[in-house]
Amino acid sequence: MSGDLGNIAIFGPGLMGGSLLMALRQRHPGLRLSVWARRQSALDGVMSRGLADFGSLDAAEAARDAGCAVLCLPVERMKNFAKSIADAISPDALVTDVGSVKGAVVAELEEVFSRHANFVGSHPMCGSEEAGLDAARADLYEGATCVITPTSRSRPSLVQNAVRLWEMAGARVVQMDPARHDRAAALVSHVPHIAAAALVELVGTESGDVRELCAGGFRDTTRVASAPADLWSGILALNRREAARGLGGLIALLTSVKQALEEGRLDEVNALLASAAAHRAKILNAPQ
Amino acid sequence: MSGDLGNIAIFGPGLMGGSLLMALRQRHPGLRLSVWARRQSALDGVMSRGLADFGSLDAAEAARDAGCAVLCLPVERMKNFAKSIADAISPDALVTDVGSVKGAVVAELEEVFSRHANFVGSHPMCGSEEAGLDAARADLYEGATCVITPTSRSRPSLVQNAVRLWEMAGARVVQMDPARHDRAAALVSHVPHIAAAALVELVGTESGDVRELCAGGFRDTTRVASAPADLWSGILALNRREAARGLGGLIALLTSVKQALEEGRLDEVNALLASAAAHRAKILNAPQ
Repeated sequence: MSGDLGNIAIFGPGLMGGSLLMALRQRHPGLRLSVWARRQSALDGVMSRGLADFGSLDAAEAARDAGCAVLCLPVERMKNFAKSIADAISPDALVTDVGSVKGAVVAELEEVFSRHANFVGSHPMCGSEEAGLDAARADLYEGATCVITPTSRSRPSLVQNAVRLWEMAGARVVQMDPARHDRAAALVSHVPHIAAAALVELVGTESGDVRELCAGGFRDTTRVASAPADLWSGILALNRREAARGLGGLIALLTSVKQALEEGRLDEVNALLASAAAHRAKILNAPQ
Repeated sequence: MSGDLGNIAIFGPGLMGGSLLMALRQRHPGLRLSVWARRQSALDGVMSRGLADFGSLDAAEAARDAGCAVLCLPVERMKNFAKSIADAISPDALVTDVGSVKGAVVAELEEVFSRHANFVGSHPMCGSEEAGLDAARADLYEGATCVITPTSRSRPSLVQNAVRLWEMAGARVVQMDPARHDRAAALVSHVPHIAAAALVELVGTESGDVRELCAGGFRDTTRVASAPADLWSGILALNRREAARGLGGLIALLTSVKQALEEGRLDEVNALLASAAAHRAKILNAPQ
């Protein structure tokens, strides 16, 4: 099965790309893996760990013999990077990505790779607040949900290869159209991220005696707020309408709770808390 | 040292009370521990685990020979329960609690125990979304911050005993006045709790394809939303003004992010995310 994809080239060996190399190396030792990195030190990190068979600082060179190219780059850099490999990519190769936004990225990259319709968008839902190869792990994708977002322009054989790729890494694949993905990602990821940052900001500007009361609940609730700001403002920039719409929903809910608290309607607050606890139990029992 | 407190009686062997029994039993095997529970089955659970030397369903009986009584009950039940043991409590005994709100609880319980000024409020900052003796663990208090909230009415010797009690359980004790505690607890705990519930509610009302994208970030950000709704609406009821004020601050922050997203001012969003990440690093490095 793994032979079908040919040589797999990973562009950008950070948390996502590095973990993908590790997962594929560990689960499918026979695969030929290539890597491109922007910096020599990053390339050295991958090669010294034995995570790839071939490494290059030249993107076109790394792309040339790939049956499958995975762009593991910040979303705002995808388009320009894609242009740098478009001529080198084989007509039959799958090009996919790991970007947290799909509408804009898919539109841009379908365009860049339009001649052979190489591109199928992917979003493995398993980030972390950490970044870089040092945070990468072979089991990052294991049991994770990976959304792929084929469109009417996608070649069915490459959609199949995208499914195969993520299943080989250990993920469960679901398909969704890019706009639907972006609406869902705003609600389950982008809005919670902004909320976590706002909760930290609220406490961070208080004096030390308040800050030192932060306990396990606060730590978990705000974990994602430690993620790299640049990475996330890039994501939010490309999904700003859905993120803003989702935030509007959150603000409306919080405003109704605030009013209920002010007016002593604690039964309403209780009802929200009970509903949320029930929803959460259902969400966590959903297939992951 | 441990002898100073005399017999320690725990009222309510749930997550907090059960964990306190376990911690004291494990760390100070010589202590005499008593327990009161509302239900026979809960009492049996404690006694069969060997966590107490004496157990009773009669609160006054359990209170009578205590040198230290710890009320581990939902905040809205504290006052009535306190009345049921006030006559039985020794004049020199410390009475304290584990309630997440201090202003209202301290005012009520100082009044109930006013004759001998037995009461000093406590809030160990180490809850969990789980509840009950089955979720209790001997290390719950280890390294946790416990706020005690003495007032001008507190007896210094009993304040010392409260410090001793929580240190014996493994916690680090800080002192704060009740109003300051309630403002801080709103920001570091009550508002994040409401936000987590609202984030779940936002997703929970969506269709299944959205819900099944919930990943690790969502799971952590909303963990506390699985806590018992009744317990938390009781807490929020007694701290509703500070919770509403804190929510107001959160809503203002989220509204400014929403507008920045709508108007494409991503530098402002980036600045918030960067500030939050820096604050969080500082908060987590603070002594815990």
